[in-house]
Amino acid sequence: MPGQVFVLTFSCIDRPGIVAAASTAIFEAGGNILDAQQFDDPETGMFFGRVVFGIDPSRHDESLVAEKLGQAFLPFDMKWSLRDRGRRRRVMLLVSKFDHCLADLLYRWRTGELAMDITAIVANYPQDSFGHLHLSDLPFHYLAVTPETKAEQERRLLDLIDTTSTDLVVLARYMQILSAELAGRLVGRCINIHHSFLPGFKGAKPYQQAHARGVKLIGATAHYVTGTLDEGPIIEQDVERISHRDTPEELVRKGRDIERRVLARAVRWHIDDRVFLNGSKTVVFPE
Amino acid sequence: MPGQVFVLTFSCIDRPGIVAAASTAIFEAGGNILDAQQFDDPETGMFFGRVVFGIDPSRHDESLVAEKLGQAFLPFDMKWSLRDRGRRRRVMLLVSKFDHCLADLLYRWRTGELAMDITAIVANYPQDSFGHLHLSDLPFHYLAVTPETKAEQERRLLDLIDTTSTDLVVLARYMQILSAELAGRLVGRCINIHHSFLPGFKGAKPYQQAHARGVKLIGATAHYVTGTLDEGPIIEQDVERISHRDTPEELVRKGRDIERRVLARAVRWHIDDRVFLNGSKTVVFPE
Amino acid sequence: MPGQVFVLTFSCIDRPGIVAAASTAIFEAGGNILDAQQFDDPETGMFFGRVVFGIDPSRHDESLVAEKLGQAFLPFDMKWSLRDRGRRRRVMLLVSKFDHCLADLLYRWRTGELAMDITAIVANYPQDSFGHLHLSDLPFHYLAVTPETKAEQERRLLDLIDTTSTDLVVLARYMQILSAELAGRLVGRCINIHHSFLPGFKGAKPYQQAHARGVKLIGATAHYVTGTLDEGPIIEQDVERISHRDTPEELVRKGRDIERRVLARAVRWHIDDRVFLNGSKTVVFPE
Amino acid sequence: MPGQVFVLTFSCIDRPGIVAAASTAIFEAGGNILDAQQFDDPETGMFFGRVVFGIDPSRHDESLVAEKLGQAFLPFDMKWSLRDRGRRRRVMLLVSKFDHCLADLLYRWRTGELAMDITAIVANYPQDSFGHLHLSDLPFHYLAVTPETKAEQERRLLDLIDTTSTDLVVLARYMQILSAELAGRLVGRCINIHHSFLPGFKGAKPYQQAHARGVKLIGATAHYVTGTLDEGPIIEQDVERISHRDTPEELVRKGRDIERRVLARAVRWHIDDRVFLNGSKTVVFPE
Repeated sequence: MPGQVFVLTFSCIDRPGIVAAASTAIFEAGGNILDAQQFDDPETGMFFGRVVFGIDPSRHDESLVAEKLGQAFLPFDMKWSLRDRGRRRRVMLLVSKFDHCLADLLYRWRTGELAMDITAIVANYPQDSFGHLHLSDLPFHYLAVTPETKAEQERRLLDLIDTTSTDLVVLARYMQILSAELAGRLVGRCINIHHSFLPGFKGAKPYQQAHARGVKLIGATAHYVTGTLDEGPIIEQDVERISHRDTPEELVRKGRDIERRVLARAVRWHIDDRVFLNGSKTVVFPE
Repeated sequence: MPGQVFVLTFSCIDRPGIVAAASTAIFEAGGNILDAQQFDDPETGMFFGRVVFGIDPSRHDESLVAEKLGQAFLPFDMKWSLRDRGRRRRVMLLVSKFDHCLADLLYRWRTGELAMDITAIVANYPQDSFGHLHLSDLPFHYLAVTPETKAEQERRLLDLIDTTSTDLVVLARYMQILSAELAGRLVGRCINIHHSFLPGFKGAKPYQQAHARGVKLIGATAHYVTGTLDEGPIIEQDVERISHRDTPEELVRKGRDIERRVLARAVRWHIDDRVFLNGSKTVVFPE
Repeated sequence: MPGQVFVLTFSCIDRPGIVAAASTAIFEAGGNILDAQQFDDPETGMFFGRVVFGIDPSRHDESLVAEKLGQAFLPFDMKWSLRDRGRRRRVMLLVSKFDHCLADLLYRWRTGELAMDITAIVANYPQDSFGHLHLSDLPFHYLAVTPETKAEQERRLLDLIDTTSTDLVVLARYMQILSAELAGRLVGRCINIHHSFLPGFKGAKPYQQAHARGVKLIGATAHYVTGTLDEGPIIEQDVERISHRDTPEELVRKGRDIERRVLARAVRWHIDDRVFLNGSKTVVFPE
Repeated sequence: MPGQVFVLTFSCIDRPGIVAAASTAIFEAGGNILDAQQFDDPETGMFFGRVVFGIDPSRHDESLVAEKLGQAFLPFDMKWSLRDRGRRRRVMLLVSKFDHCLADLLYRWRTGELAMDITAIVANYPQDSFGHLHLSDLPFHYLAVTPETKAEQERRLLDLIDTTSTDLVVLARYMQILSAELAGRLVGRCINIHHSFLPGFKGAKPYQQAHARGVKLIGATAHYVTGTLDEGPIIEQDVERISHRDTPEELVRKGRDIERRVLARAVRWHIDDRVFLNGSKTVVFPE
């Protein structure tokens, strides 16, 4: 078992020789590949790869690996990243009134399921709204927002993201639409969760609409945020069965269960470097 | 175990005393209730009930039961039906080019899973299009349809429904939109199946659209047909998990599996008198 | 909408007239039935019923309802209970080291999903083992247990159950096998959760065994406790998909998710009077 | 899009350089990797890989690819296979009385979902037992079996497997236990399907046992056959939800649905070279 484990992600326009180049570089730097997944999208012509490998740190080092990979990838105009698995992703959690997703993420973080560092919890409600959650060991920021103060609030939010070196922003039922500008600054590193139905419903009170239509399944979708809320590249979805006995309130309750489950999976996969943006879609390498 | 089993379905505007009236009538006619389910919709104020009961035919008879129930239901302006479970529903299957749902329904019928009589198979493709299916023991009608002949074809279809005393028409991937007139004649007794996605997609080539959007689940919906295709009251839905590796062709393949499963369930529940129309929704009493 | 809502559960040896008797009594006491489900087990010959009904408390009262039902049920040797829905079940939670089920039940209780009163949390670990959970508003009892003190510990536990008028004891990953005597005292009011696999595995370290066997699904079962642990009547089960990439540790992690979900459902259904003991099985009336 | 596509599967004791060797060989032979998945089992120390790649047949050929790979794999004591995707697997289907799995496999084969050639259908029931299936275009062999003739029958079966160059034998509800000898001859190329429950049940009439125990889920397992029936390495499993209303007959009916679905997936993955034996487990690379 190697002492130091790295996750390499890389993507470029597909052409012969990419895997040979990467695997040879890793081999020459003393690495042993533990897990590798690759996907070539026949439509976009893009290549996506994720390789987990270990080195013996007493004989080899990270800088050599990075150097070898850099050389190997030169001909490919490669977009790549190399992360020591011990360097945990830095994650900021944004929340509004409903805290079921926040509570679930915190629980999974405390038990070690989510290997991340929490840089801040940001809410547009004061801290005592979350009195039953144990938050005292976490930096909490109450950033109220009104139509008038939204621009200023987003500026403070962005400052906080920068000063805390946050890698990922999670909208854990944060009921504010990010401005196109802020969304643009967070491309590929801001995850949102929302309800989903078959068929989809536009407009307000979706659970009421779903109820009125008598749907038999309700669902949730975790996706990257883009300028258009609820329309970004999908990371994960799941559903739960309902019946004619379920009132709109029951749908909301069952929806909470799906939302927290789906969001936790999306966050987990993102911080483990399993998710790639691929145009309007994602590539997700399974656990 | 009683020798003769009946299924009673009944619905009316909810008010006290309905269940007492029905159960007393059944008791007085010598019946023993085997299964009973009831639902009161707090929104529409409607009551829905389904009771399965048996009688000893050597001592009691059906006409007495019907008479007692008729008397009991008089004050309630009740819509009700009583069916000897041995009187199987008469079902017509409509199909176009894709026969996965037809093949599945026929298999389930042959094995006794679907306790129904098939009155006809109607297709807008000739019989030899379904050469690998064993159809020779079933009345097959090839009713071609063009924009010009649609009205005439629907007239012949309706004739066939009437002359064969068909109770239920199943659109088993029948790729023709029924006219509003025909749909209106078949309210509550015509079931359609179509694909469903989270979120929903409008327009042509939905599997391609779902693929372009990178959805992680695809689904199917069985519903009663109304004037507007794909918009009738939903009977059943289900989904299957997909990944970024699935091409549009794979989605279509996986969609077939869900479509046939969902349609078979909806047909089964309908012919077992488990499904009630409730405005734009259904009430489905579970098995 | 009636001002006072009751849940009636009743079961006896099946024979004609039960439903007529109950529904007539409710009608005569001024009640309006809102939901009714019934099941006759053809094997055991037992009848099981659950009726939800409302009365207008300004015109009728509970004592009249109980009196009418008592009279109606006299001929049937009926086992029945009547609960005002506002009288919440009193629930005690037992836990050991792993608190994922406890945390989940508490969260659902705080959000109102589980309409119960918590009489006590009992653990065989000290309170500071659960430091990240907000427990200060709940009575916590640390009852350590060793082979020598087990009898004494169970006596204190039973005392606590009695003095707190606890209706239901939930073993939320409580890693102690109850003595046959204690289990016997709690028949039908003590729920346990444990992992389940296809096929089942006997003995220690089941997740390791499941991993060694390469199962593709892992599951959890919530059941009533009997003298034999893990063998009581099943209330609910569910599974999650796994792959060859999952280590035993991953199985444990995924197992936690299923365990808490399945236990929460079982508790919810029990406190809503939906679960009946039926020999070695249960009858569960769906929501 | 390359004109000729190959599937390479390879496994050996894990050590650095395997992927580099394979990918370099493919690159040098003019191949372009389309899909690659790899798994290193930290427990057994084994490496498993599957690579799909294309070549331009006007410029390169298969023999060069095979030669390059052979050279590259020499140092690794590699077990590998290279298949032109156009060379379909040759599959024999064995069946007894219940033909739901056979019917389903045949339907999927006719629609092109299962890209295989059927070498024979072998049954221990005469052909007219399957009268409703369209079998006339397929070689059908009625090989009756009794305890006395079992050895002889298996000899004829093995002859048939050899003379038809069958790659895979599918026990599609074939209710005969293969002798240890025959099972030994078919290691890794004979797939069986059987029911599964949580918890597992030993002995006869498992659906009755599951019913008596009140399980809430029933399942099916597809696995490779070993000397011990129902105990071989698992390829796929799935479950379906049941309730207290389901009789043993209903369980059997619902079981059929799961069995055919699970078996079809296992066969599909096997003929697409996605399944590897890994001791008592399998590695299954997802679609």
